[in-house]
Order: sequence, then C-alpha cells, then structure tokens
Amino acid sequence: MKIGQLGEFGLIARISSRVGNSGGVITGIGDDAAVTALSPGMQLLTSTDMLLEEVHFRRLWHDPYLLGRKSLAVSISDIAAMGGIPRWALLSLAVPPDISLEVLDAFTRGFLDMAAGHGVALIGGDTCSSRAGLVISVTIMGEQEPARIVRRSGACPDDDIWVTGTLGDAALGLALLEKRAHSPVLTTEEREYLISRLLDPLPRAAVGRALAEAGLVSAMIDVSDGLLADFGHIAEQSALGGTIRLDSIPLSPAFRSSLRSGPASGHDLALAGGEDYELVFTAPADNREKIVQLMKRCGIDATPIGIVTPSPEVTAVLADGSRYVPQRHGFNHFA
Amino acid sequence: MKIGQLGEFGLIARISSRVGNSGGVITGIGDDAAVTALSPGMQLLTSTDMLLEEVHFRRLWHDPYLLGRKSLAVSISDIAAMGGIPRWALLSLAVPPDISLEVLDAFTRGFLDMAAGHGVALIGGDTCSSRAGLVISVTIMGEQEPARIVRRSGACPDDDIWVTGTLGDAALGLALLEKRAHSPVLTTEEREYLISRLLDPLPRAAVGRALAEAGLVSAMIDVSDGLLADFGHIAEQSALGGTIRLDSIPLSPAFRSSLRSGPASGHDLALAGGEDYELVFTAPADNREKIVQLMKRCGIDATPIGIVTPSPEVTAVLADGSRYVPQRHGFNHFA
Repeated sequence: MKIGQLGEFGLIARISSRVGNSGGVITGIGDDAAVTALSPGMQLLTSTDMLLEEVHFRRLWHDPYLLGRKSLAVSISDIAAMGGIPRWALLSLAVPPDISLEVLDAFTRGFLDMAAGHGVALIGGDTCSSRAGLVISVTIMGEQEPARIVRRSGACPDDDIWVTGTLGDAALGLALLEKRAHSPVLTTEEREYLISRLLDPLPRAAVGRALAEAGLVSAMIDVSDGLLADFGHIAEQSALGGTIRLDSIPLSPAFRSSLRSGPASGHDLALAGGEDYELVFTAPADNREKIVQLMKRCGIDATPIGIVTPSPEVTAVLADGSRYVPQRHGFNHFA
Repeated sequence: MKIGQLGEFGLIARISSRVGNSGGVITGIGDDAAVTALSPGMQLLTSTDMLLEEVHFRRLWHDPYLLGRKSLAVSISDIAAMGGIPRWALLSLAVPPDISLEVLDAFTRGFLDMAAGHGVALIGGDTCSSRAGLVISVTIMGEQEPARIVRRSGACPDDDIWVTGTLGDAALGLALLEKRAHSPVLTTEEREYLISRLLDPLPRAAVGRALAEAGLVSAMIDVSDGLLADFGHIAEQSALGGTIRLDSIPLSPAFRSSLRSGPASGHDLALAGGEDYELVFTAPADNREKIVQLMKRCGIDATPIGIVTPSPEVTAVLADGSRYVPQRHGFNHFA
C-alpha cells in the first residue's frame, strides 16, 4: 500500500494503533492537544529537535528502523542531561512522496521501541507531505523534582570534569561513511561498532537521572556538538572555564585502532566530534569515589577528564601540560 | 548581516534576547531542556504543528511577520479547542541559505508578538540549516483544570452544533491568491479581509477557555481542515453524527459578496475549506441562552448551525431539508 492510499488520517491511525498505554497520559493521540498529568511535586522538562534529510541524516546510510530510534534518542538525551525522567513525546513527520509505507513502518517501530525502552509514551504529533526530503521533528517532555534538576550553569571552580562512555566514535563513524577516513587496520566489527555509534546512539537516561537524584553533580550537558563546544556551554553558563587533559579522554578500542594508523589530528574527533550523546558533567572532587560507585551500579564507565577553572577559557592540554589546539571546534549550523 | 556570519548560536542568542519573562518559566532558552511549573491542580495540554514552505505557505505571499504570527496562532488554536490556557512554546526552524536575517527577524517579531498577546512564553527550540525551503515546527503547551478540559469525544445526541465567527473566508482568500477565484465584485477591502483571514488568523483562545471554564460545551475542535472534516472528528470520537444546516453557516459580508457572483458550489468553501481557525463546539440546547450571553461578553459571534444525531453520519442539508453533497471534503495530506 502507498501512503497516498492510506491518507493523512490513515497514517495517524496506523501509528497510534501501535502506541501502548503509559503512565500520566490522560488523553493521547487523537484530540486537538494531548492531556498529561505530572507526578506530584515535579517540574516539567521540555526539549525539541529537528532532523532533516541531507542535513542530519542520509536515507542511503540510515536504516529507517535505526533512524526512528535515533530520532527519539537524541531528545531523550536532552532530558538525561537535565537529570530528568523522560515521559512523553510528540512526533511530527513531513513525508516526501518517494517514501514507502514499509519505510515509515520501520521508522515508527524504531521510534516506539526506543520510547518503550525508556518509559516514554507517544502522545501526539503532526503529519504532512513534503516536497523536499523527510523532516522529523520531535518534542520530548520529562519531569523531575525541582531540587534534582541539573543545569549547565552550576559548575564550580576546581570541580572535576567527567564524561561517560567514550568520545569520538560517532564522528569517526561518520568519517568512515563519508570515506574521509580510511582505516585499513580496523576489523569489520570495529568499523560496525563505530558506525553504529553514529546511527544508533543510546541516550544515557538512567545514568543522568541517577547522578541527579544522588545529588552528586553540579552541571551536566550531553555531547551533541562535540566535547569542547558542549563543555563550552557549561563553562559559559557557569561563567568559568576548564582544562581538559587530552590523554584522559576515554577512547574506545576501535577508535584507538584507528588512531594508530590515522593522522596526528585524530584526537580532534574526540575533542570536537559531535553526536556521541555521552554526558559531560562537573562534580566536586569529594564526590569522586561516590560517582565511581554509582557508575558501577549503572554498568557505565565515567572518566574524569579535566578540571573547572576560574578563568573563562576552555583549553585542551597534552600530557606535558602544553596546550593543544584542535583544528575543528564542534558543529555549528549556518557556519 | 547574513545568517552564516551570525551562526547557529548567534541566531539562538538573537531570538532569545527578545524573549521576555513569563509566569511558570523556571529555566527558559539555553539549557538542554526548559524547566516549567504547572499551576497547582492543572493538567498539561500539548500540541505540535509543522509548517513547510510550498506545502503550508508560500514565502512569496506570506509576509514574514504574519508568517511568524500564524506559526504560533495555529498552535494556540489547538489549546483553545481543548478549553486550555496557552502557556509555553517551543520553536524549531530549518532555514534555507537564501533567507535574510531581516526576514528571520520579522518572522521572530511576529511569533513573539502573537506569543505576548496570548501570555505565551517561548522557552526553547532548535535551529538548523535547510537545503530545501523553510521548515517551521512549533510545540505549544497549555494547562487547564482536569474537569474543565473539553475533548472531541463528549458530544451528546440532540446537542446543538455551534461555530464561532464566520467560515470559508480563509479558503476563499487562498482561492483569490491562487487566482482560482475571480470576484470582480469584491472591493479592495473585502479582498484584503479574506486574504488576511488566511495569512493572519486569530486563534479563539479567550473564547475557548471561557466556554470550557463556564462548563457550557460538551465537545470542541478548531476548524483547520474544514467544517465537515473537523466536525467529523467530533462525530467519530463521540460515536455520533450530525446534521449541518447550510443556510445557518455564518458567512462574512465579503464572502457573501463573492457568492453573489461565484459558482453555485461557493458554499463548499464554507463547508470544506480549512484554516479558518474558528471553534466548532457542541452544547445542550438548554445552554443556548448562556452561550449567547458569554459570547457577547467575549465580543465574538457564535452561531448554532446544526444538531448532533444518534446515527453516525455527518450531512449538510439545504433550507428545504434536502441533502447537499459538497464537491470537496476537507484537506488531507498525501491524498
């Protein structure tokens, strides 16, 4: 069947028939607005992301199921970065005529699987036809107790700078897809791992929430534009700076394999490459042991990679203390 | 200055510098997610709309200031149709390279003027570059006491069907712009009025809220796809039908002028033309006088145009009781 036969309302019915019940949803898809109820004492967290074909993704590279997962994952990551509990999502789709119903179904399945994995209910959205590429717009809502919400602005001088997981994998995955990077030393598994970090990122929802609810962190952000750019937002909004130790940045085995044969600027992908959707957070040095223990319980690695400084500059330093200046500095639309 | 010089973060800063403070906003633009607080005892209403260039609007016709106003107006209209109080909005923009900063500034001014006029705070969004036309995605959040929220599903047999304002003006305005309609009898003022109904719709926010808070209506929806299609949603979700009296549909003087010289199917624009953003609601006949009084206080006309029927069919009838079948039946993407 084609989308033209199904029509706008058929498409909405097809998607909504796959949505399960979920907590806090009073009225879901199908009215002028969705009705939801926050848990008592909670504040509302809201974020929105737009993904455009040929700007944020290529249909040629991106399996529609994984694209559906990623479309929600990047939004869940924003709630995680506030220490919130993701709850509800709105999904808007502008669909070009050459997209088949099978592709849309796979996309929807991916989106709803990601939602179910994080306790998120799809409560509404918008669908329309597009004359130029698939456009995906996702709004996510979450909640958290006011005192637990972690902002970018809370970093203090001498706080440790931490990062979860490993950095640079998604940027290297993109370079491999774009054939900018040639790494004959990579195994097929390593190559697939790196590309999957780009195409199927896993938001650190449980970790962000656990850190916030334990009261261990002073500021937090997710790595979407690149470590330097994203920590730069923490620094700017906290009116501070930071020093990041290049050799402390956690790198995956696959990324290290590529570094051995790659150019000297390979580290730039870890410093300035975006889309890892790891969490960068700051915390007093006294919390170090507690953070390590909490991360163990979450089954996630977190690594201290630097220190917050009073001077409002963000710098990367090499092992000998000398300054390292990367050749790129994070993603900026329009630039 | 060009957007390329300003960059993504410059554009965000430029927009957010124009946003005023507003109630319930704990953290607005500039963090991973916005933080807001619902008023005590309220439930959250959420809706989202996407507007694509060449699908929903043409830049050639649509002054950017008015496009900014309309982008938010259509979302406020959804909150109005639930009887809610609009509170917060998220705005995502995908901007093609040929749009100037002046155009974006005018758009933003329109959006923020519409927001200020309805007590709505812009609390976040997303910006990116577009390779194919301007894409606007707006999410609106509102609130209302649970018992006051009006759904599509609450209509009862023998309820009156009402509509605010006049219908068909926006569809006729579009026909005039597309030169499908030629109405030499229209004055310049009439022509401008009809086109402004399309390009600068005013959401019935105060009316929707007042009707809901007075407890006078059983179901409500806004007219975005056309009266028959939109009342059809009320009928379907209430498992009922309805009879609409063609000669009771309120028409503006400009629309009537056009009818005099137009084809016999001119009424179809009032029955099936979209984008009027009036409210269609159902109410027990006993409430008729109270509704008239309330509408007077709101300074808006509302007209009873038909009756809810137990049989699940929506029909339009002529003055002699015979059935009228329109040639079009509302807007449907992909159809």
